[in-house]
Amino acid sequence: MHEHGGNLDSAVQRFGGRIEDWIDLSTGINRQPYPVGEVEQHALRALPSRSEIESLHDAARQAYKTQAPLLAMAGAQAAIQCLPGLSRKGWARILAPTYNEYGAVLASAGWDVAEVFSLDALTGADLAVVVNPNNPDGRRLDKADLLALLPRVGRLVIDESFADALPELSLAAEAGRGDLLILRSFGKFYGLAGLRLGFVLGAEADMAKLSAMAGPWPVSGTAIALGRRALLDREWASATTARLGRDCVRLDAKAMAQGWRPVGGTPLFRLYDVGDALAAQDKLARGRIWSRIFTQQPRWLRLGLPGDEAEWSRLASALVR
Amino acid sequence: MHEHGGNLDSAVQRFGGRIEDWIDLSTGINRQPYPVGEVEQHALRALPSRSEIESLHDAARQAYKTQAPLLAMAGAQAAIQCLPGLSRKGWARILAPTYNEYGAVLASAGWDVAEVFSLDALTGADLAVVVNPNNPDGRRLDKADLLALLPRVGRLVIDESFADALPELSLAAEAGRGDLLILRSFGKFYGLAGLRLGFVLGAEADMAKLSAMAGPWPVSGTAIALGRRALLDREWASATTARLGRDCVRLDAKAMAQGWRPVGGTPLFRLYDVGDALAAQDKLARGRIWSRIFTQQPRWLRLGLPGDEAEWSRLASALVR
Repeated sequence: MHEHGGNLDSAVQRFGGRIEDWIDLSTGINRQPYPVGEVEQHALRALPSRSEIESLHDAARQAYKTQAPLLAMAGAQAAIQCLPGLSRKGWARILAPTYNEYGAVLASAGWDVAEVFSLDALTGADLAVVVNPNNPDGRRLDKADLLALLPRVGRLVIDESFADALPELSLAAEAGRGDLLILRSFGKFYGLAGLRLGFVLGAEADMAKLSAMAGPWPVSGTAIALGRRALLDREWASATTARLGRDCVRLDAKAMAQGWRPVGGTPLFRLYDVGDALAAQDKLARGRIWSRIFTQQPRWLRLGLPGDEAEWSRLASALVR
Repeated sequence: MHEHGGNLDSAVQRFGGRIEDWIDLSTGINRQPYPVGEVEQHALRALPSRSEIESLHDAARQAYKTQAPLLAMAGAQAAIQCLPGLSRKGWARILAPTYNEYGAVLASAGWDVAEVFSLDALTGADLAVVVNPNNPDGRRLDKADLLALLPRVGRLVIDESFADALPELSLAAEAGRGDLLILRSFGKFYGLAGLRLGFVLGAEADMAKLSAMAGPWPVSGTAIALGRRALLDREWASATTARLGRDCVRLDAKAMAQGWRPVGGTPLFRLYDVGDALAAQDKLARGRIWSRIFTQQPRWLRLGLPGDEAEWSRLASALVR
């Protein structure tokens, strides 16, 4: 089990309280989730049908503004789990620092994995992985640069898990060409990570292989029903994008008032140089606010955005303790 | 995509009507599902935590009366998808006829797959697969015979997807010893197939490998919350087992009144020799009742049990048309 945000268990173990006492800002999951309303009993009872899955795919194509072949999976993570089986074992190069599951999954499947620190250094890789915008530092890669890289690698995987509120970064419209694979997360922007839903976009042949690996019922009925509803609601998406933008400014201001230096981030989380990350995490934890720190970067603390006003004032109190 | 029950799409395509006009008896999914009640928002919003998954595992151990290492997965099917990766490629032998996904998944991963028709003929297989009680014919294998087979195969997979109402058949209590792997489905008996939940029981090392293949969030928050609640409700399970027993007798009587000969079945579905299965399926379909037939066995028709009294009378009318 690798280090992840969302591990409130360990916060409770170390600092006490009950799970429900905590505000979890250790992830990039939107804390003002899509209002789910009722879930029909049918979605829980029956096996998901082909036509239901197809209608979810159509909704995702609308949301991501693409005509590309696309496959719903149980979270972007489920697609990562299938990556090693998609092509012949070889050299994987990952633009670092980034989400740690790529390296872990590929290495344990016997791939030769290395982290690199520039786009150019991905050249020659059998499998090149970039996360755009990046987690945790928010680095943004230019679309033209990524397209120029494509002929110089065996396969390019672009993880757009945090791109919903930055649609101008997305290469979803270019998906479908051989050897470009795009991963999208549903749960983060829509605040419904417990649903386990994500999408892969790519060439028809790759979608067929991934579908065979995922099996006939790759996502739950609830994920299909709620996912479809949420993805078609572009009004909610626009309003949320605007709100997240305002909230980032608000959080950065609070952080800077602490003397924390903004390093980067996306509309769903912010990364700060806080000096002593362990001490900053402890301080927030005493106010029952959980944050993400990084073994490799002892000065970095990542914070998701608080949800309602009650959460913002809890954060404010924790910071002035 | 292989032939499966639950494919109401194709019923609608061939015979018309809307999905909701149909009664789907083409599966073995209980049509009087566990009463789910409310799903907490937390289950949809947050990533499932380690402690939540552990509490689901504990509930499953209680329900299946075992102390064995066990792993929740997104349906028994998700475990089947992982089977080829669990041991070195070799000879897989499947006790046939049975659920067609085993052969398909193993063959497409490059295993040498053959169907055999007696327990003895599994001897020498690197991977031996039995479904107990079997789908579709309900064949029941003796626990002692299965344990005797264990030293004569590399690995024995026992699919107990339909064993909830026949607990005396289950080898769950024996799980944990090397090279025995038991699969349990949650969705069939509890009537919540859309949740995508199942379990694998086996040796600690196999659970670790499967867990690595499934990734850090193998099941949804909804599956954890509802699965746990349902598995701990042993009163509902007893009442349901009793009710299913009565309903099987009732369905068999109706079938025999049609001149259909019972071939076998489990408490969740019945298999009949109907002479001309295609004609019988058509007849039921004109009453918007969907059933399962088998390309390989043109005389067989499989029927799940109707749910409420309205469904029983719809079935009665369809049969006398």
